[in-house]
Amino acid sequence: GYASVDLHRGIRCGFPEVIFGQGKTAEQIEGILKVLLKHEQGGLVTRVEPETAVHLKTVFADGEHNSLGRTFRIRGAVDPGPALGKVAIVTAGTSDLPVGEEARVTAEAWNCEVTLLADVGVAGLHRLLHKLDTLGGADVVVVVAGMEGALPSVVGGLVDCPVIAVPTSVGYGASFGGLAALLGMLNSCASNVVAVNIDAGFKGGHVAGLIARR
Amino acid sequence: GYASVDLHRGIRCGFPEVIFGQGKTAEQIEGILKVLLKHEQGGLVTRVEPETAVHLKTVFADGEHNSLGRTFRIRGAVDPGPALGKVAIVTAGTSDLPVGEEARVTAEAWNCEVTLLADVGVAGLHRLLHKLDTLGGADVVVVVAGMEGALPSVVGGLVDCPVIAVPTSVGYGASFGGLAALLGMLNSCASNVVAVNIDAGFKGGHVAGLIARR
Amino acid sequence: GYASVDLHRGIRCGFPEVIFGQGKTAEQIEGILKVLLKHEQGGLVTRVEPETAVHLKTVFADGEHNSLGRTFRIRGAVDPGPALGKVAIVTAGTSDLPVGEEARVTAEAWNCEVTLLADVGVAGLHRLLHKLDTLGGADVVVVVAGMEGALPSVVGGLVDCPVIAVPTSVGYGASFGGLAALLGMLNSCASNVVAVNIDAGFKGGHVAGLIARR
Amino acid sequence: GYASVDLHRGIRCGFPEVIFGQGKTAEQIEGILKVLLKHEQGGLVTRVEPETAVHLKTVFADGEHNSLGRTFRIRGAVDPGPALGKVAIVTAGTSDLPVGEEARVTAEAWNCEVTLLADVGVAGLHRLLHKLDTLGGADVVVVVAGMEGALPSVVGGLVDCPVIAVPTSVGYGASFGGLAALLGMLNSCASNVVAVNIDAGFKGGHVAGLIARR
Amino acid sequence: GYASVDLHRGIRCGFPEVIFGQGKTAEQIEGILKVLLKHEQGGLVTRVEPETAVHLKTVFADGEHNSLGRTFRIRGAVDPGPALGKVAIVTAGTSDLPVGEEARVTAEAWNCEVTLLADVGVAGLHRLLHKLDTLGGADVVVVVAGMEGALPSVVGGLVDCPVIAVPTSVGYGASFGGLAALLGMLNSCASNVVAVNIDAGFKGGHVAGLIARR
Amino acid sequence: GYASVDLHRGIRCGFPEVIFGQGKTAEQIEGILKVLLKHEQGGLVTRVEPETAVHLKTVFADGEHNSLGRTFRIRGAVDPGPALGKVAIVTAGTSDLPVGEEARVTAEAWNCEVTLLADVGVAGLHRLLHKLDTLGGADVVVVVAGMEGALPSVVGGLVDCPVIAVPTSVGYGASFGGLAALLGMLNSCASNVVAVNIDAGFKGGHVAGLIARR
Amino acid sequence: GYASVDLHRGIRCGFPEVIFGQGKTAEQIEGILKVLLKHEQGGLVTRVEPETAVHLKTVFADGEHNSLGRTFRIRGAVDPGPALGKVAIVTAGTSDLPVGEEARVTAEAWNCEVTLLADVGVAGLHRLLHKLDTLGGADVVVVVAGMEGALPSVVGGLVDCPVIAVPTSVGYGASFGGLAALLGMLNSCASNVVAVNIDAGFKGGHVAGLIARR
Amino acid sequence: GYASVDLHRGIRCGFPEVIFGQGKTAEQIEGILKVLLKHEQGGLVTRVEPETAVHLKTVFADGEHNSLGRTFRIRGAVDPGPALGKVAIVTAGTSDLPVGEEARVTAEAWNCEVTLLADVGVAGLHRLLHKLDTLGGADVVVVVAGMEGALPSVVGGLVDCPVIAVPTSVGYGASFGGLAALLGMLNSCASNVVAVNIDAGFKGGHVAGLIARR
Ligand SMILES: Nc1ncnc2c1ncn2[C@@H]1O[C@H](COP(=O)(O)O)[C@@H](O)[C@H]1O
Ligand SMILES: Nc1ncnc2c1ncn2[C@@H]1O[C@H](COP(=O)(O)O)[C@@H](O)[C@H]1O
Ligand SMILES: Nc1ncnc2c1ncn2[C@@H]1O[C@H](COP(=O)(O)O)[C@@H](O)[C@H]1O
Ligand SMILES: Nc1ncnc2c1ncn2[C@@H]1O[C@H](COP(=O)(O)O)[C@@H](O)[C@H]1O
Ligand SMILES: [Mg+2]
Ligand SMILES: [Mg+2]
Ligand SMILES: [Mg+2]
Ligand SMILES: [Mg+2]
Ligand SMILES: [Mg+2]
Ligand SMILES: [Mg+2]
Ligand SMILES: [Mg+2]
Ligand SMILES: [Mg+2]
Repeated sequence: GYASVDLHRGIRCGFPEVIFGQGKTAEQIEGILKVLLKHEQGGLVTRVEPETAVHLKTVFADGEHNSLGRTFRIRGAVDPGPALGKVAIVTAGTSDLPVGEEARVTAEAWNCEVTLLADVGVAGLHRLLHKLDTLGGADVVVVVAGMEGALPSVVGGLVDCPVIAVPTSVGYGASFGGLAALLGMLNSCASNVVAVNIDAGFKGGHVAGLIARR
Repeated sequence: GYASVDLHRGIRCGFPEVIFGQGKTAEQIEGILKVLLKHEQGGLVTRVEPETAVHLKTVFADGEHNSLGRTFRIRGAVDPGPALGKVAIVTAGTSDLPVGEEARVTAEAWNCEVTLLADVGVAGLHRLLHKLDTLGGADVVVVVAGMEGALPSVVGGLVDCPVIAVPTSVGYGASFGGLAALLGMLNSCASNVVAVNIDAGFKGGHVAGLIARR
Repeated sequence: GYASVDLHRGIRCGFPEVIFGQGKTAEQIEGILKVLLKHEQGGLVTRVEPETAVHLKTVFADGEHNSLGRTFRIRGAVDPGPALGKVAIVTAGTSDLPVGEEARVTAEAWNCEVTLLADVGVAGLHRLLHKLDTLGGADVVVVVAGMEGALPSVVGGLVDCPVIAVPTSVGYGASFGGLAALLGMLNSCASNVVAVNIDAGFKGGHVAGLIARR
Repeated sequence: GYASVDLHRGIRCGFPEVIFGQGKTAEQIEGILKVLLKHEQGGLVTRVEPETAVHLKTVFADGEHNSLGRTFRIRGAVDPGPALGKVAIVTAGTSDLPVGEEARVTAEAWNCEVTLLADVGVAGLHRLLHKLDTLGGADVVVVVAGMEGALPSVVGGLVDCPVIAVPTSVGYGASFGGLAALLGMLNSCASNVVAVNIDAGFKGGHVAGLIARR
Repeated sequence: GYASVDLHRGIRCGFPEVIFGQGKTAEQIEGILKVLLKHEQGGLVTRVEPETAVHLKTVFADGEHNSLGRTFRIRGAVDPGPALGKVAIVTAGTSDLPVGEEARVTAEAWNCEVTLLADVGVAGLHRLLHKLDTLGGADVVVVVAGMEGALPSVVGGLVDCPVIAVPTSVGYGASFGGLAALLGMLNSCASNVVAVNIDAGFKGGHVAGLIARR
Repeated sequence: GYASVDLHRGIRCGFPEVIFGQGKTAEQIEGILKVLLKHEQGGLVTRVEPETAVHLKTVFADGEHNSLGRTFRIRGAVDPGPALGKVAIVTAGTSDLPVGEEARVTAEAWNCEVTLLADVGVAGLHRLLHKLDTLGGADVVVVVAGMEGALPSVVGGLVDCPVIAVPTSVGYGASFGGLAALLGMLNSCASNVVAVNIDAGFKGGHVAGLIARR
Repeated sequence: GYASVDLHRGIRCGFPEVIFGQGKTAEQIEGILKVLLKHEQGGLVTRVEPETAVHLKTVFADGEHNSLGRTFRIRGAVDPGPALGKVAIVTAGTSDLPVGEEARVTAEAWNCEVTLLADVGVAGLHRLLHKLDTLGGADVVVVVAGMEGALPSVVGGLVDCPVIAVPTSVGYGASFGGLAALLGMLNSCASNVVAVNIDAGFKGGHVAGLIARR
Repeated sequence: GYASVDLHRGIRCGFPEVIFGQGKTAEQIEGILKVLLKHEQGGLVTRVEPETAVHLKTVFADGEHNSLGRTFRIRGAVDPGPALGKVAIVTAGTSDLPVGEEARVTAEAWNCEVTLLADVGVAGLHRLLHKLDTLGGADVVVVVAGMEGALPSVVGGLVDCPVIAVPTSVGYGASFGGLAALLGMLNSCASNVVAVNIDAGFKGGHVAGLIARR
């Protein structure tokens, strides 16, 4: 068949395989979701095209489609209990919101309490400094930024927890599709900053969930 | 003067500023260390040249020089108490050891219990599979690898905690000074993998410490 | 004319020129195929657009179109006899299947016995380890992977035959259109791994056929 | 001969040609300086090697060698009068000082009042915020930073004058010799930030002088 | 909400936040403009799509849409008084005009007197040399060029004021989307040349305005 | 206006300005052509879109559109006399033909005798070796090739005249839009090979004309 | 310890682990060799520094040092029997010889019959065409070339067996340390060409041995 | 042996093989020169190290060593007759002279009349404009420039012959070892400009000789 679904990941890694929707047909995703649902308590698909979401919604009526974040989530039947940790997500600009939303949905699927602060980029620092309380209370902060990707360094110097930097492809010219932001984050002078792939909101939210629930 | 030591970082971020030794004279490092020691419980210098270490050892007799990891550490007077969490460090090859050592010293400065497994690269998987117990018990795994940087993906699929991937400049030709390993780690299909800069053992150990002590 | 078909390649190299369909009109491909068919026992076209395939099917009724692999093949009239060797093709993910199919069709055109294992990426190793028998019996293994391209190194450490690594453009962000996977494969620490161009399923299958039939 | 000294630049552009010392012998620099001195009121050489400086000092006894900034300057005989404008120079780290010094010497040669703040990088923002008065009074700010190059964006959002960003090659791994800092600065979300070449302290100081004296 | 408009920038930096239209919906831009207009004397949007302009024109009847430069500007009610300085804008080719126009509109929003000379590239120097009067009278020159980006170096050697070089993505092949022009400008042997991002006419015009009004 | 046509180039350089059609409207091209025609004996436009060609054909009835090469040429009224030199153009594959045609039209506009050999790539050398007579009689050879761009080195070793190598964007994956071919040509071990930009058939044909007519 | 020698590789893969000498001390290599020798019939070290070779020669008296190829080989006690296949190695220039030698030693360690043809680059084709007999009789050809890396395409079109292309870092400027040659080889229009890492003579010889012995 | 000297090149291409000295021992060069001298009228070696030159001078007493251009030339016994054409060589800066010298020696070996103008870069145009007579009389102009590589475009617009642009590695930071200059030259808006590899003075002089002697 077209897929070898990794059903033991839940046992081995403590979290189920999340479906990477990009480059898969709606039927393939439906098929993999059904296999997962048979064995797990829920399912999450990322990078879902709008038409694919329409199809999935027909098949899985209680699935939740986040159109900005391009996710499709089916919650499990079991009550997850109280939230397990606090994740703060910060975006530098309005255009970084889709990636921030993907991170938010993923961290919530981990049963974390998530706060999202949008458009608080470094060229207007007071917007960030006014929100220090929110940041200070988090177990982990996910910082989403395009262009020069400077926000994680600033946030990293203000908090005492890990910062997961998610570069975005927002920008033009010498941003080279997010490369400038990515390089900035990898070279951050703040020692608590780690990075994931460009536009990888999923990974940012996922590892944030892993850390917060500890 | 030549430096504005960030003395509030200990309060603000919960961990003191670590001195980046590269490009600083032995005298500059000595000066900064003395300022730090006046205000904090200890100090850590990374990327210390051999001659610099000799100088520092003369001044700070109880400082510990790790020549492989190129670090110089002065422990604080206060007893740190029992270790706060478990960090596993894994290196793909023998040549990745210096970076692994830098990570180890840093995580130990965080008062974590650290285990280091060397030379367990993906071309001989059994070497890794025999050590699953060690990995399974860790709060976080730091994976250090050069060349194709494939090890974090394999480790990520075997554990249920975050994996911090540290690419190294080990290799030649199309490894482009660690770029190949870095790109591999950023594109890891294992969802629990985050990355830091090439040869950034310090960052790997630092964030591992942050996560493990939670 | 627009083409100088290399008719002696069959004699010189033991295999006919295969038509690279990309950037050619349906009429040009038809013309070249007719020249080839006059002199050889069959013909193979790669990178065939859907509409081109429709046209070719009209002209060459017994041609076989593989829509996933984008190939069009016309078998020769002569019975090729029993298969000449065993080729295993492995893909890391579902999205790598088109490139895997192109490799499969090409190796079959070499009269090899081909087995294809799909979606057995390194983040879920057991999927691969369960298939070691298939891999062990092959004369050569073609490994198709995008993203970090780690699978060839793992496979290379498990088999005693050459591994031909085919990077794919599957991924996003810092995968840079397959560059990350390509670099990973070129830097493989497994010594039996060689690489071909990004998305070059044809080359992977072709050289596998060359090796297997020896 | 080996050089066509551009003697009319002083008239055409209002400022004399500055000698780029890199790749020139001490004798060549001496020769060009003598030509310049015959026609102008002074002379400035950048990127001067230590041994070259010794040679020049022997020939031009009243020349001033800045060993950190690698410059050699001969003041003109004419009293330049009161300083013509205010230039603030800010460096992110101690290692960025040489480039900052090159900028300082150059802006002073323009007869500007120059203030230099060292080691006020973004991971410890309070260090910068305490110096807002200095920055606020400047006609132009030169920001010198390596690694992720985030400081110009933060400074740009705090001042109402142009910011000239000078990336440095300070860093390692994915800093790629200053490329990460350069890209960060070119993509700055602060609209008053322009950039010059990596390690081009001379250009930063020069254009700052041009702007401040207006 | 989707935006944290930086309302104090006018006070802090002396100029209001300009809206980056790319990746924002017409409704989002309308919303941000309304907030800005409530607090400032006018508003400027860059990178406005044609349909967005139609929408904005309906809402803000006295807004001015520059379709070539892709800007939308609402002048303030207060009379700005006489122009504050002279900005010359020079483009190398006809295709660089859109970026030149973006620069022109922005500098005019700064209340500067702007002259634009189009299509005076370096392969026909006389076209430029005939315009030396215009250039000579400017407080600052913005030079817009694609392909090899050589024009700023030539202009820089002819004027005694700062030159802001704006590389464009005009060209093909090894221009790599403006990278060749950008690198050329960063490496300019004319010491009065600074650079901004590829196609960043806005930044060129903005900093030119900042300098000219001093 | 939008253009400063360089009318003296014919006098200064011996050849008129050729219009770069890319990014210009049909009306702009028409306008520039009319200015040129008023002063010169003919006109040439490159990179002409199909619809633009239709428009130009309506205005300039005796203009010649080469749709493969994307050129539009208006011959001058004056009889150019006998051809002035011999140019051979060689393409590696069928897909390189459009670039080869652009070169051919340009060299013919120089009044050269042009021969074009298509699809004689290095993997089937006999195709080239059979044409040595044609190559041997040329004053200059233009070699057009994509993918690995190896053909100019082979041709360069067989002829005693200059070889102008034109890389094309034909290929996929690691051809990176023609970069691989360009680098190959710049590194050619044949000492008589020079290179122009990717897909720059115009430049290849133009300089070939310049050399051949001497 | 510093190494986890993969002792089962001989059983699993049919060939022992070869020691990558780069970045290892003479003592570390000695140690690993002794472990290998205890379990295998011989040992091979690549990238051996001259001083390391002197040390190893003292310890292992019957070890063979190839100074050009930088290898150190200890033959096993068991008679390997007659050669198992034919490997031809071809280098484009004299400077590519060290990489060619590394390939030769490795293939001979596989008990293959190896022929090496040096300095037969594409700018003088007759040198290659005179050696067609040698190439035609081989089971596999290893082609070693720097600069433009065109030789594998030419050889690939002349033989009916697999061609393993080994790019070298020979060249300057736009060869970018072997990148140009590598890209050329990956984009080869000859379908039987696969590539390994830059300067990876070991891999070329190893896979050639694997193929030839089948 | 280590070399297959291409002795027929003189016949086939009209010019003998020139020895690339880089990476060859003095003895190898001596050997190749002796073979060449036996069959040809002279010999030229490029990229000769100082010590190698001393050795060669001992063996070939009438050889001429150009230490700036790093060449070693042995003239033939036959009188070459009057010079065959005019080559002008122009360098942008003093530091570009070594590459200019390599070009000069090579073009002179072609028996051309060569004029070299040094240090006439674009930031001081009058230096170039004063030399238009020299340029105007040439059959071909070689332009050698580092940094932004703008000079060939300016020269190209002033002359009616081919311009061979030779980028140099002079510069720092974002010059990336000559890449900026190379890209600038490839993207030249002057249509008579072709390019060779970075620092390839030999190729520039060689092709200039080929063109001039026609
Ligand atoms: N947006 C995403 N970015 C990166 N990895 C993802 C994303 N979504 C899912 N994944 C991972 O991709 C793998 C599944 O890939 P697949 O088998 O192609 O569905 C799982 O390991 C997921 O954790
Ligand atoms: N450190 C520097 N970086 C960049 N350009 C410089 C530097 N120092 C001097 N220059 C410029 O280089 C040119 C002189 O180069 P040269 O003729 O090689 O001495 C002048 O235009 C100077 O303004
Ligand atoms: N075309 C442009 N290029 C770069 N920056 C811009 C542009 N237009 C506006 N900006 C800046 O982008 C910031 C606003 O971004 P945003 O919050 O996303 O609207 C402001 O600081 C502006 O000065
Ligand atoms: N020159 C070489 N280039 C690439 N890989 C090599 C080389 N020499 C040995 N190897 C491989 O490197 C691995 C051993 O690495 P190590 O454990 O660091 O000695 C083995 O898998 C060898 O096959
Ligand atoms: Mg904003
Ligand atoms: Mg090992
Ligand atoms: Mg999968
Ligand atoms: Mg500091
Ligand atoms: Mg024009
Ligand atoms: Mg063909
Ligand atoms: Mg040779
Ligand atoms: Mg100069």
